[in-house]
Amino acid sequence: MPRNFKITIAYDGTDFCGWQVQPSHASIQGTLADAIERITTRRLLPQGSGRTDAGVHALAQVASFALESVIPAENLQVALNHILPASIRINAVEEVQADFHARHSAVAKTYEYRIFRQSICPPFLARYAYHHPFPLDEEAMMRASEFVIGEHDFSSFAAVDPERGKEEQETENVRTIYSSEWRLDGDLLAYRIRGNGFLHHMVRNLVGTFLLVGKGSLRSDSIPTILAARRRSEAGPTAPASGLFLVSVEY
Amino acid sequence: MPRNFKITIAYDGTDFCGWQVQPSHASIQGTLADAIERITTRRLLPQGSGRTDAGVHALAQVASFALESVIPAENLQVALNHILPASIRINAVEEVQADFHARHSAVAKTYEYRIFRQSICPPFLARYAYHHPFPLDEEAMMRASEFVIGEHDFSSFAAVDPERGKEEQETENVRTIYSSEWRLDGDLLAYRIRGNGFLHHMVRNLVGTFLLVGKGSLRSDSIPTILAARRRSEAGPTAPASGLFLVSVEY
Repeated sequence: MPRNFKITIAYDGTDFCGWQVQPSHASIQGTLADAIERITTRRLLPQGSGRTDAGVHALAQVASFALESVIPAENLQVALNHILPASIRINAVEEVQADFHARHSAVAKTYEYRIFRQSICPPFLARYAYHHPFPLDEEAMMRASEFVIGEHDFSSFAAVDPERGKEEQETENVRTIYSSEWRLDGDLLAYRIRGNGFLHHMVRNLVGTFLLVGKGSLRSDSIPTILAARRRSEAGPTAPASGLFLVSVEY
Repeated sequence: MPRNFKITIAYDGTDFCGWQVQPSHASIQGTLADAIERITTRRLLPQGSGRTDAGVHALAQVASFALESVIPAENLQVALNHILPASIRINAVEEVQADFHARHSAVAKTYEYRIFRQSICPPFLARYAYHHPFPLDEEAMMRASEFVIGEHDFSSFAAVDPERGKEEQETENVRTIYSSEWRLDGDLLAYRIRGNGFLHHMVRNLVGTFLLVGKGSLRSDSIPTILAARRRSEAGPTAPASGLFLVSVEY
């Protein structure tokens, strides 16, 4: 009987092509698969709670995989951290019920987007924030962010996903957002959003739209209209990947 | 008449071969020279307060150069930060007296070495610390660090410098250390040293030796004997570059 494992992973996404394995590019998923294979001689692909794009970071991504092995969970964690590059850390390994699946079992996720506000961004923060030193109406952004709380069709904030059919994209873009909030934290302006699921690029598209509000190009109360339009072209641009962190996944 | 400029630079040294320009490797000095040339069309080599090695960081390295240009200092700073990679930031540009030289005019420097002590190092810190999660007698390290305060011949802590003759190396390794101190700062154990000058690898060799004291392989009061020996082989190994920061240069 294979055992089912749940691993919790932090990573600096800067030097990776994203979560998903790709030929001839270093991905988080592929790098994990290589490390698991070196330890156990088994080739498998850990299933993430969801993909993160190139340059996006994770404080606690979750992945699961079935493994025919007697290795204790703690030894697997130590061995993985020994083999993996320092840019990927396994913060927990647990043996879980056979029906646990990192993506299917997830009930909520939290993301954070970090914007550095001072005129010069320290080199030690540049990989982990979006540098935007220009004036922003932060209160308008805070007001705008409240409009996405609740159940909405987020088509206007979703990248077109080539893996999903047109019909699926038009019918399955409803998500529930439990909290959506900007806060000032020293030189960082941070946006935190928690919801039952997120479409591709959804957080970065929301942030790009809130930035338009902050710059005064869009009114904060235009968010409901953008949501209702269900058209990507109604919303703002996709904010850069470097500012985005997957904070946690709930089960 | 060329004008003389002093620039203050922060950098993440991870992806550079060090301060000094090298053929076919990205150096801080060479990257700065390229940026200055793009702005002013003049090819010159900024003179640093001293070299930093590959992987060593700077919070406030200082460099100087003479430039025949009418560009205001502030515009030069903005233009440099626009062109330079985010891993190098110019925090100040000042026009200074013709006799100012970043290396010759320096009267004191401060370095800090950062050791991350928890068992798992977050990927966002891995580039900016040395990960050492094993037990250390921190009080013994603190006692050991006090023995280097004052004027000493630091030959035992100096890498052999191929650019200096044997005679020079044997006679000119005396430096004065004004302060030398370990402190605990959350999960970081940090060593800060201020002196009138530093030999090649000196801070990392001191840290490597203090780590031997922390591990119990060396007594803290053996530092005077190591100094007196004036032989590199008497001291500990060179600590990894990632933990080292040039904090400031005084003039």
